[in-house]
Amino acid sequence: MHNLSLDFLFHPQSIAIAGASETANKFNAGLKFLEGLLAFGYKGKIYPVSPGGGEVLGLKIYKNLKEIPGQVDYVISAIPAQYTPQLVEDAATKGVKAIHFFTSGFSEIESGEGEKLQKEIIKIARRGGIRIIGPNCLGIYCPSGGMTFNPDISRQSGTVGMVSQSGGNAAHCIHEGNSRGIYFSKVISMGNGADLNESDFLEYLIDDPDTKIITAYIEGVRDGPRFLKALKAATKVKPVIIFKVGNSDVGAEVAASHTTAMAGSSKIWEGLLRQSGAIQVHSIEEMVDVTAAFLNMPAPAGRNAAVIGIGGGASVIAADEFINAGLELPRLSLKVRQGLLGIQGSEAGRIFKNPVDVNNFEGPEKFLLTVKAIEASDNVDFLVIQVAYDHFGLISAADKEFLTGVYIYSVIQLKDKVDKPIAVILHSFSANHTKKLALESYDKLSKVGFTVFFSIPRAAVAMSKYIWYQEWLKSHRAGPIKKSAG
Amino acid sequence: MHNLSLDFLFHPQSIAIAGASETANKFNAGLKFLEGLLAFGYKGKIYPVSPGGGEVLGLKIYKNLKEIPGQVDYVISAIPAQYTPQLVEDAATKGVKAIHFFTSGFSEIESGEGEKLQKEIIKIARRGGIRIIGPNCLGIYCPSGGMTFNPDISRQSGTVGMVSQSGGNAAHCIHEGNSRGIYFSKVISMGNGADLNESDFLEYLIDDPDTKIITAYIEGVRDGPRFLKALKAATKVKPVIIFKVGNSDVGAEVAASHTTAMAGSSKIWEGLLRQSGAIQVHSIEEMVDVTAAFLNMPAPAGRNAAVIGIGGGASVIAADEFINAGLELPRLSLKVRQGLLGIQGSEAGRIFKNPVDVNNFEGPEKFLLTVKAIEASDNVDFLVIQVAYDHFGLISAADKEFLTGVYIYSVIQLKDKVDKPIAVILHSFSANHTKKLALESYDKLSKVGFTVFFSIPRAAVAMSKYIWYQEWLKSHRAGPIKKSAG
Repeated sequence: MHNLSLDFLFHPQSIAIAGASETANKFNAGLKFLEGLLAFGYKGKIYPVSPGGGEVLGLKIYKNLKEIPGQVDYVISAIPAQYTPQLVEDAATKGVKAIHFFTSGFSEIESGEGEKLQKEIIKIARRGGIRIIGPNCLGIYCPSGGMTFNPDISRQSGTVGMVSQSGGNAAHCIHEGNSRGIYFSKVISMGNGADLNESDFLEYLIDDPDTKIITAYIEGVRDGPRFLKALKAATKVKPVIIFKVGNSDVGAEVAASHTTAMAGSSKIWEGLLRQSGAIQVHSIEEMVDVTAAFLNMPAPAGRNAAVIGIGGGASVIAADEFINAGLELPRLSLKVRQGLLGIQGSEAGRIFKNPVDVNNFEGPEKFLLTVKAIEASDNVDFLVIQVAYDHFGLISAADKEFLTGVYIYSVIQLKDKVDKPIAVILHSFSANHTKKLALESYDKLSKVGFTVFFSIPRAAVAMSKYIWYQEWLKSHRAGPIKKSAG
Repeated sequence: MHNLSLDFLFHPQSIAIAGASETANKFNAGLKFLEGLLAFGYKGKIYPVSPGGGEVLGLKIYKNLKEIPGQVDYVISAIPAQYTPQLVEDAATKGVKAIHFFTSGFSEIESGEGEKLQKEIIKIARRGGIRIIGPNCLGIYCPSGGMTFNPDISRQSGTVGMVSQSGGNAAHCIHEGNSRGIYFSKVISMGNGADLNESDFLEYLIDDPDTKIITAYIEGVRDGPRFLKALKAATKVKPVIIFKVGNSDVGAEVAASHTTAMAGSSKIWEGLLRQSGAIQVHSIEEMVDVTAAFLNMPAPAGRNAAVIGIGGGASVIAADEFINAGLELPRLSLKVRQGLLGIQGSEAGRIFKNPVDVNNFEGPEKFLLTVKAIEASDNVDFLVIQVAYDHFGLISAADKEFLTGVYIYSVIQLKDKVDKPIAVILHSFSANHTKKLALESYDKLSKVGFTVFFSIPRAAVAMSKYIWYQEWLKSHRAGPIKKSAG
């Protein structure tokens, strides 16, 4: 069942780029792929291919694949669609193992010509034993193989795999992830999926030892039962985080024009994903939020959160958002609350419920005592520290920066002193010049290993989904589904 | 019914600050209020008051209110709660018109002492003819009156009024608004609302000629029927955008500890707000999004949007989000689509449905032609241009910056050449160094008057709510409610 054989896609020894020409304009796609591989220090041989020949970026351009002297494992096609059948013929002759078609203008367009052409290239490829990625996609990003579709994404390998029916959303997810310290094992932008499709790549990622978390942007699937079977197998061994789109009629129609995917109804998808143990998200940002929780935070023992921070208004919003997301905010015991009163000295301007509104102007020591007192509650599974910049309502920007610095330091010290999992929320850093401070604070907090979110609702939703998967895993590892599943 | 008399709160001729002392620590609240008024160039007289006397920031400190030689219109109290009854007594003797209590430790705390104290100060104030703001709040921000609770918010007056039961959320809203070119007429952080409450301020803002849009952060109301009556009167003459929190049980309980507000059920609130013509939002950011639409964009004639941008994946997400938000994405006519094919030259890599996925690498002229062709559709009420930075998936950061610049320029040119309303979305500027570019692009686009949003769902939700209010207004201005309402 598993496509371990797809390993060859991620570590080819030689790549030909059809359409990387000497006279290319600045934004010529073939040239861009070439630049990307060179920038990434791809270790294998690279062969630019274009009928005019010549030289590009110091490399000889071959007029066609057959002219290339050595073996060609992998071809990137960035030529117009009408020339692709010849390319595949040549690739077959040359013994190429895989072609990635950046080229678009196939089944996804409305003219019947596109579909005819797609069928033709697939037929030639099958005959020649060539696997196809795409057409109409960005292809493969695999830092360990030196493969990329963009020169600026990280060369650092990580443990997150992704299969995406949109190159743009794959790029968005990688950039968003990289900016938050999340790195990838393998990302596949698969476009129309005319040969290798979402099920192939999902099956591959299940057993891929480099991939610990699977993410997927899905517009629709070609073979529902196969995809669901793969999904169920996947979620037993690693979390699968899925952003399923095309849920509206219009979305489904546009998805068909985008990558020919059949979208299906949103209610059905929601149920199927939940039953399969997959975590459904509703944006790329949310996908990265949930991934961040899995990567950096020990799993909370349950849904009971204690939210701690400065600001009554922020505390009320946090209460609504955490409850609405399906988490619990248990009442703190009288003993704990009396302890808090003792530490804080007065109830004025503070709230000793849950969320707890503390006044930390008095420094890190008091903050640590406060957090430890709350952690000691039996009914608290994890802690959430919310840092609300604008909510220092009365003071100047300079003082707010100073206090935020002290506050962030107060949070960082918790890392070694608090055992229960901690999530941190940085929110309401509204003014343009303070957004920079949020990013700096983010970096400081992530560096010591905290999972940090950029808004109260995003934290609530991500934590709820992270915990949901732990619950699902517990009930399905021991339960009857394991027995009945293959 | 209208509290036009509250004008005196916003333009006092003299302010005493109780608790602005010589030996104040850096974060002493009295000192902060004093610094804020000085920084804002408040034109009236300022009298610091503290029992120790002395001098602060070049101003003589009076030992108590009665010692002040001239008239005192307005008092800011930043002294501990136990000393407030004497302060109010002195204020009554002195003929003070209003006291704002920053001081907390009243009804919002659990000890019965707080409630007793609050009743006492209200009793003394009533007897002395003094109106109270708070206690437990930041008070008033009114640039035209030189009044502020923070030295860094804008001195520029605008047309947005706000009443808020949280000082932190008021500050958040102001900072968020200022950073997006939104300015305020009057913001009232009203805390416990022991005397003047949410209904008083709402009634005041209805007739305030400086206020064109009313926003409110509400944890609960003291007098439901009065508040709803005011709300119905308000929405007939200006939009009212309400963020109602405390909708969960826990949220309601925390709200009570925050500002003593009775929250009520979320379903009931949702219905009441809708029937009253108020626009319900679910975060401060959404409040600012909707406000931005009202401030800068002519009202679309209906719900039919055409979304235009680069990126198939972004287009599919836009389709889902716009439809889910209750907007329509009508199919473009065959004629329009053939026109687009003529302009764009090829269907490959593009989608000529709605959302439209264009390839604008070819510059502003082609982009303008494309947008004009779509604008010409009878069934399109407004246009949405989505600019997706990361979705330029293939190219380097330098090239993306260049292309984004060209793209932003291509959008800016539309301002004078397209008649239908246009909303712009800047999204997926994920990497930390590109977030700066998003903010710069935002500024360029807002400067020429575009309403700009930072994500696809935020744009969809804000536009839907903006249009909903136009529909509501149309049906209720002509309809029976106008006749029956006062």
